[in-house]
Amino acid sequence: MTKLLDPRLQRAFAPRRIAIVGATEDRNKVGGRPLHYLQRFGFQGAVYPINPGRTTVQGLGAYPSLAATPEAPDVAIVAVGQDAVAGVIDQCAARGVGTAIVMSSGFGETGAEGLARQQELVAQARRLGIRLVGPNAQGVANFQTGAVMNFSTMFMEVEPRDGPVAIVSQSGAASVMPYAMLRERGVGVRYLVASGNDADASVCELALTAAADPEVRVVLMYIESLRDPAMLAEVARLAAARGAAVIALKSGRSAHGAKAAASHTGAIVNDDVVVDAFFERHGIWRANDVQGLVNAVELYLGAPPRAAEHLVVMSHSGAVGVLCADAADTLGLPLAELGRPVIDALAGIMPSFATAQNPVDLTASLMTQGGMYADTLGALAADPQADMFLVGVPVAGEGYDVPGMARDTARFAQARNKPCVVSAPQASVRQAFREAGVPVFSHETDAVDALHQWSRHGMLMQQAAARHALPAAAMPAPALPDRDGPLLSEADSLALLAASGIPTVPLRLCRSADEAVAAWQALGPQVVVKACSARIPHKSEHGLVFIDVQTAEQVRQAWTACAERVAAMDLPLDGVIVAQRVRGRREFALGVRQDPLFGTVVMVSDGGKYVEALRDFVVLLHPFSESDVMAKLARLRIAPILAGVRGEAPMDLGVVARAAVALGALAAAHPQDIASIDLNPLIVGDAGQGGWAVDAVIERQGASHAAQ
Amino acid sequence: MTKLLDPRLQRAFAPRRIAIVGATEDRNKVGGRPLHYLQRFGFQGAVYPINPGRTTVQGLGAYPSLAATPEAPDVAIVAVGQDAVAGVIDQCAARGVGTAIVMSSGFGETGAEGLARQQELVAQARRLGIRLVGPNAQGVANFQTGAVMNFSTMFMEVEPRDGPVAIVSQSGAASVMPYAMLRERGVGVRYLVASGNDADASVCELALTAAADPEVRVVLMYIESLRDPAMLAEVARLAAARGAAVIALKSGRSAHGAKAAASHTGAIVNDDVVVDAFFERHGIWRANDVQGLVNAVELYLGAPPRAAEHLVVMSHSGAVGVLCADAADTLGLPLAELGRPVIDALAGIMPSFATAQNPVDLTASLMTQGGMYADTLGALAADPQADMFLVGVPVAGEGYDVPGMARDTARFAQARNKPCVVSAPQASVRQAFREAGVPVFSHETDAVDALHQWSRHGMLMQQAAARHALPAAAMPAPALPDRDGPLLSEADSLALLAASGIPTVPLRLCRSADEAVAAWQALGPQVVVKACSARIPHKSEHGLVFIDVQTAEQVRQAWTACAERVAAMDLPLDGVIVAQRVRGRREFALGVRQDPLFGTVVMVSDGGKYVEALRDFVVLLHPFSESDVMAKLARLRIAPILAGVRGEAPMDLGVVARAAVALGALAAAHPQDIASIDLNPLIVGDAGQGGWAVDAVIERQGASHAAQ
Repeated sequence: MTKLLDPRLQRAFAPRRIAIVGATEDRNKVGGRPLHYLQRFGFQGAVYPINPGRTTVQGLGAYPSLAATPEAPDVAIVAVGQDAVAGVIDQCAARGVGTAIVMSSGFGETGAEGLARQQELVAQARRLGIRLVGPNAQGVANFQTGAVMNFSTMFMEVEPRDGPVAIVSQSGAASVMPYAMLRERGVGVRYLVASGNDADASVCELALTAAADPEVRVVLMYIESLRDPAMLAEVARLAAARGAAVIALKSGRSAHGAKAAASHTGAIVNDDVVVDAFFERHGIWRANDVQGLVNAVELYLGAPPRAAEHLVVMSHSGAVGVLCADAADTLGLPLAELGRPVIDALAGIMPSFATAQNPVDLTASLMTQGGMYADTLGALAADPQADMFLVGVPVAGEGYDVPGMARDTARFAQARNKPCVVSAPQASVRQAFREAGVPVFSHETDAVDALHQWSRHGMLMQQAAARHALPAAAMPAPALPDRDGPLLSEADSLALLAASGIPTVPLRLCRSADEAVAAWQALGPQVVVKACSARIPHKSEHGLVFIDVQTAEQVRQAWTACAERVAAMDLPLDGVIVAQRVRGRREFALGVRQDPLFGTVVMVSDGGKYVEALRDFVVLLHPFSESDVMAKLARLRIAPILAGVRGEAPMDLGVVARAAVALGALAAAHPQDIASIDLNPLIVGDAGQGGWAVDAVIERQGASHAAQ
Repeated sequence: MTKLLDPRLQRAFAPRRIAIVGATEDRNKVGGRPLHYLQRFGFQGAVYPINPGRTTVQGLGAYPSLAATPEAPDVAIVAVGQDAVAGVIDQCAARGVGTAIVMSSGFGETGAEGLARQQELVAQARRLGIRLVGPNAQGVANFQTGAVMNFSTMFMEVEPRDGPVAIVSQSGAASVMPYAMLRERGVGVRYLVASGNDADASVCELALTAAADPEVRVVLMYIESLRDPAMLAEVARLAAARGAAVIALKSGRSAHGAKAAASHTGAIVNDDVVVDAFFERHGIWRANDVQGLVNAVELYLGAPPRAAEHLVVMSHSGAVGVLCADAADTLGLPLAELGRPVIDALAGIMPSFATAQNPVDLTASLMTQGGMYADTLGALAADPQADMFLVGVPVAGEGYDVPGMARDTARFAQARNKPCVVSAPQASVRQAFREAGVPVFSHETDAVDALHQWSRHGMLMQQAAARHALPAAAMPAPALPDRDGPLLSEADSLALLAASGIPTVPLRLCRSADEAVAAWQALGPQVVVKACSARIPHKSEHGLVFIDVQTAEQVRQAWTACAERVAAMDLPLDGVIVAQRVRGRREFALGVRQDPLFGTVVMVSDGGKYVEALRDFVVLLHPFSESDVMAKLARLRIAPILAGVRGEAPMDLGVVARAAVALGALAAAHPQDIASIDLNPLIVGDAGQGGWAVDAVIERQGASHAAQ
């Protein structure tokens, strides 16, 4: 388990005694709904409606105050006016309540004044030792016990059923939408939590509480603003330890979406590419929309996700096979190439299978030959590439043995422990397979998406587990030079990179023209001459870079020009860099910055003049390995060029990977000192030839705005 | 209307008399199903079961042969063994049958022998003046008249209802899948056609027949192999003329999918990027999957697609707004920026709207303030950017006036003539809106997808109509030089491009070193010297290109080297090209080829060494305009660079557009002579500076394989 779990919240998720402060008769009011639900869904614990003006509420004996309750409630629902909330929290403390679910609105969601009120409320609760869900929360529901402390209208309309799924969301709407979609598919849900303003117990901490229930197999999350990523990482770790999965919809991907999210929750805006990298690193599947949140859930309930490779498609329609192949290709999910033994076995089942290939076309014989369906599945399962199965049933009914096919499919999936799903546009056909326990989809794209997600998520979870197993390496990092100023000079920056193990271009920092000529003699015949000043990060713009310098005379001229121009700018000159002119195959740009939430973030990008315009980059979160970098570089658009096309040698990506790891380690070792590192370009040669960091700027913490 | 319509097929789609050759008692057999359906779905015309062994079939009087029928059938269903089909076709001719729907299998789908049989069958039918649907066809269904000459099991299970939709498919399965999905949404379908082997009447001609019905508003097609694009273009033209839309799923996008398609239909494989360009040009929406085929249909039935610009999102949940904004951003669909007058009007409806923005958050007040919903919609509609509306209803039920909202929404959409859709995860809520006539979706991404498709399709249809309205320009094209050989030399190729109006690099073809020096004097001081031979298209590989030649001596040396090396290769030298060395901003690669189905195809690509690896190109089908090219260039990944970043000037894309149009016109004027043109590079300068074709190879027809 994990130390981050709070027993007070755990008790709130499975309470024995619940108080409702502001309980009302009207079941369509916030203070009436939960009371109605607790009775309707059979909560067996004690329920204490608190209402000083009544003796009973909705048929239950009411109490004038929390103090009057016979035993201390585990949790109190707070459904009173905004002005009365603080008083209720005091009463909660006096009565020993562990958690208050504050449904009252009028806090952070209303603007600056409300936010101040909310901060006071949180401070008060922490002082008193009470955990808050909310304020402005739709609440917490436990459908196993009937402890439905949640006022959503949804449970009036869509009947709940207990199941191994938890839905934990910042938004009430985004909690009940996946609920409705899952229930329509017949999937049961145990916890449904909407945390509202997320002021004390965050959506991540509440998800951790749900994930601590050993029967929960899938945790679905809706996040608008992620403010405690470490807690989210712990949710994923805790779940994965028993094969349970976390699927999260982090909205606000787009500029408009982020603006809308910020306006309705006042939340911080996360950098979306960093969120992607974080989720991937921790084995959390990122859903793109509500449909993506629920689409594959039945598959996860069948078996924990597993890194599977290949797909087998079977249908009695050739067109379905073509469509599935297209859908799989779009996602990069490979189809199994059936081996000869399996093809021979299939030929024994049906002569036309002599030319069997995947997708497998059962043809209309399916209707006339009873045992063929199960026999074919069985034969296919023997193929070493047959990892996952998709059966397309475009039409069935009179003349088809649908219950028999459903039974055969379920039996097969269980016996072989290989996922097998069905795609069928007819509701009646889906129902027959669902009743047999087979995951069903109404069209082929959703089915292929789900299998792809399940297997790729399995791979991410496996990689995340492998990372946990490794001890964190304690990197000895070089110290920063003891000099003032917001930026390190190029010479200092490159020296620090070199000390971190990054190969840098051979260079000398020269204080005189004679030194420069000597450097040229040592490093030439072709050198680059550049002025070096911590105050001038953009040298080219000021005419302070001389490329292709080839003679002693040119070196002297360049030295003089640098000295004069920097003097004219009235800035100090640290010296002049004479660097070997290196030639490689391609330029990369590497960057590091410290993210206040996600730590040290490293970016590796295709280089050159148009880095920003082409946006061909990958993001890594420290700590990461060289093979993490290699795997990500393979996703760049320029990946084929890096691997070598038109007979060219592959490029030395090892040096890029080592440099990225070293940059991350350097910045992570100096979180208080290094704000960012810009290494551009890293010139890379053929595989085995290495590369050279040619220019770099290290920015100190606190200098951000001054330096830009 | 169109001359391409065949009255025999039109009669087959709305027949008065139907014969079923091979009619059987068993309604689960191919020869029994249609007979069952004709009676079950109330066909009012004459039905003639043909069965020599029986006096009645399924309760209807049977005839021993076609010859014995009392009146000539409009259409005959052929459900006999493969060997008997040809005989039945003869009988059809003798009895005056216009169309035979051949359900019998054992033809092209079985291999080479079956294909030969099929070709004979088609030849026989053409000789006899009979149109064929099939063979191996599931058939034709008309749910308006009950003329269901189709054996699919689907109509046993999913009750048909007439409606303004036609589904025309090569595959039986792919015809009934969208049918089932539409019927589940309550949408009626008039025609359902599955053409099987597509041997005579193609899927496109059958779609044309369906599109000729003036009540059909949407034509849905499934195509595995497109063999008569002109017919498809006519379907789109005929439909668009009355605001009806064509949505087509062309499968086999992926290599695996194309292989699977080829294996089960023996069909030709279309070049997928050309299919994309063709669909776009003719205003046909390309669906990616079966879900994409049906998703927006209800929107089209509400109003013909129209080029709309901006989306307004309204919900009582902020999260739904965020999710919709994300989904719209993914598709590039802009959200309306509400103007001050509308914001002021909203503030009058609800104070918290004082800061209204799009997405509009109605908040929970929706439940308490009855008129607010309709008032808000009305106020929003006044905004000049409010083109399309999406209302998100994440939850509703007890406490909500759902029927009222549904009524208000339907009334609003009708009064304003602006599309308005609803997204709701609860089936009961969707049902309420659907009953009021509002298009509904179960989640926000499908809703945004549908609105995006509808408006973008409207734009494509508008552009296609504008193209029809323009008279085809008769371009006078330069003649090809009268020389033998599969390829034109570089000098001949560039001369032909220049004569076509493409700016080419200043150059001279020199027969002696003295001529070369004179050319250098005229064109230098920096020139490029290249050997010119129609037999050597890849000059660089043979050391026959000298760049950056700057002196008379260097010109002579280059000339001599070219002459000696070509002589050593034992190949004829046409001369040596001395060309000015031009410098521009970027290189493009342009290509043309003649596609046997789609005509002259022009490709414009980012240039340089890695054209193939980076795959950043656009495809245009002749004839097209310069503005067509400009619009497509804006979709390149390098588009931001072309437009100018980092303070750079934009590039001269006009010269690229003019060159693409001219290349297309040149090749189209010589369909028998020019197989392909490879213009690489076209060097382009800043906007207004133009560009230069620097190298080109024109390949003659018939030379394809020899030259590669």
